[in-house]
Amino acid sequence: MPDRDAATSSAPGVKALLFDVFGTVVDWRGSLIADLSAWAQARGLRGDWGALVDAWRAAYVPSMDEVRRHPERGFVNLDALHRQSLERLVAAQPIEGFTEADFDHVNRGWHRLDPWPDSVSGLTRLKRKFIVSPLSNGNVALLVDMAKHAGLPWDLVLSAEVFQHYKPDPESYLGAARLLGLQPAEVMMVAAHNNDLEAAQDCGLATCFVPRPTEYGPLQKRDFKAEGDWTLVVRDLDDLADRLGC
Amino acid sequence: MPDRDAATSSAPGVKALLFDVFGTVVDWRGSLIADLSAWAQARGLRGDWGALVDAWRAAYVPSMDEVRRHPERGFVNLDALHRQSLERLVAAQPIEGFTEADFDHVNRGWHRLDPWPDSVSGLTRLKRKFIVSPLSNGNVALLVDMAKHAGLPWDLVLSAEVFQHYKPDPESYLGAARLLGLQPAEVMMVAAHNNDLEAAQDCGLATCFVPRPTEYGPLQKRDFKAEGDWTLVVRDLDDLADRLGC
Repeated sequence: MPDRDAATSSAPGVKALLFDVFGTVVDWRGSLIADLSAWAQARGLRGDWGALVDAWRAAYVPSMDEVRRHPERGFVNLDALHRQSLERLVAAQPIEGFTEADFDHVNRGWHRLDPWPDSVSGLTRLKRKFIVSPLSNGNVALLVDMAKHAGLPWDLVLSAEVFQHYKPDPESYLGAARLLGLQPAEVMMVAAHNNDLEAAQDCGLATCFVPRPTEYGPLQKRDFKAEGDWTLVVRDLDDLADRLGC
Repeated sequence: MPDRDAATSSAPGVKALLFDVFGTVVDWRGSLIADLSAWAQARGLRGDWGALVDAWRAAYVPSMDEVRRHPERGFVNLDALHRQSLERLVAAQPIEGFTEADFDHVNRGWHRLDPWPDSVSGLTRLKRKFIVSPLSNGNVALLVDMAKHAGLPWDLVLSAEVFQHYKPDPESYLGAARLLGLQPAEVMMVAAHNNDLEAAQDCGLATCFVPRPTEYGPLQKRDFKAEGDWTLVVRDLDDLADRLGC
């Protein structure tokens, strides 16, 4: 049985845990390659789906940065950014016969991602003692569909879309604390990405690093380990539940 | 066992259910009077707590209308409006000895409301087949705390605070559909108040009336029955689950 007092003291005053989602809670790469390959086979389409997924993800940060640099153009949600990138990538590759319905189905692959093995059990335990929410660049509908698909037991769903600012803009972290009625120090950001934690720490949030060294498969180049002075460093979400006495 | 085909046809195309909360899902009056009376007795304070609760609730709509009429002043969330009304009411009544901590505790009584007997079982069943969310004038922190207290199994928490517009402003209903990535007709508003459903219907949402004839106790003057052409009229949330084949 966990020692509640010792556990609580490892993150004193924290009342809510905010989770990065893509890579931290769900295995986007493994899920998308499996989902897309099975669908393409049934649909009779040929292509290098692993390469498509990696190129699609490579377009993610630049597409959000474009939105972040041009607030005057208005916020564009992640489903729309994913769709723009997908259309460009499919047009550039030797993949033929994509219909409008195919684009819709493939784009919604991000709504059907599978969790890492520890995610559901860890979140279920953490929810007993803390408010648990995503704070993701994924849009609300994407995150809600994913939670239904993967069984993620969120208390609420916070997204960059709600704040009209993608992470790492401070408006997303501070907006989440404000809606929760909490001080930044009462909120902990949990992520597999050091840059996400750095931005959260700059806003006054507590921080927790979870390594996910296989997130990018053979392409992984960073985030093998904690690179900042984070509040906690854990092995996985079950370990986080242990450390917080849940 | 419910007939799924017949049930689905009673709300064709609906994918998400949005619930009014105060009065529809939770018994605010019974909960607050019980919570406040028990606390006051332990605290050694005397007062007519039933009268205070009724006067507090009577201040609710006028305080939101003030915000709705003056958007230039900025949005003020419900915890803040409740607090302003409470301070005025306590000052006007023969209640003495209220400290700052007392005001905080009493104001957070709205975070500790109890559900009607059918709410948790109904929502749990409805969640299997539909997205379930509050769409309440309560602020996000209030609704999250209430869900933890009452065991309400929301998929996400939508609030007037997210849209910076109190119901019945159309921005709240249409904003909810937009964040869910759904057409208004794919969303059903469930409420014990005919005026809430009228505003939702004007925005193109499907509608469901649930009578809660004891919400206001002996002061109840309206909403004993459905008064519009609503998509569904049900007895309670278990009946809604039956009707929708959940």
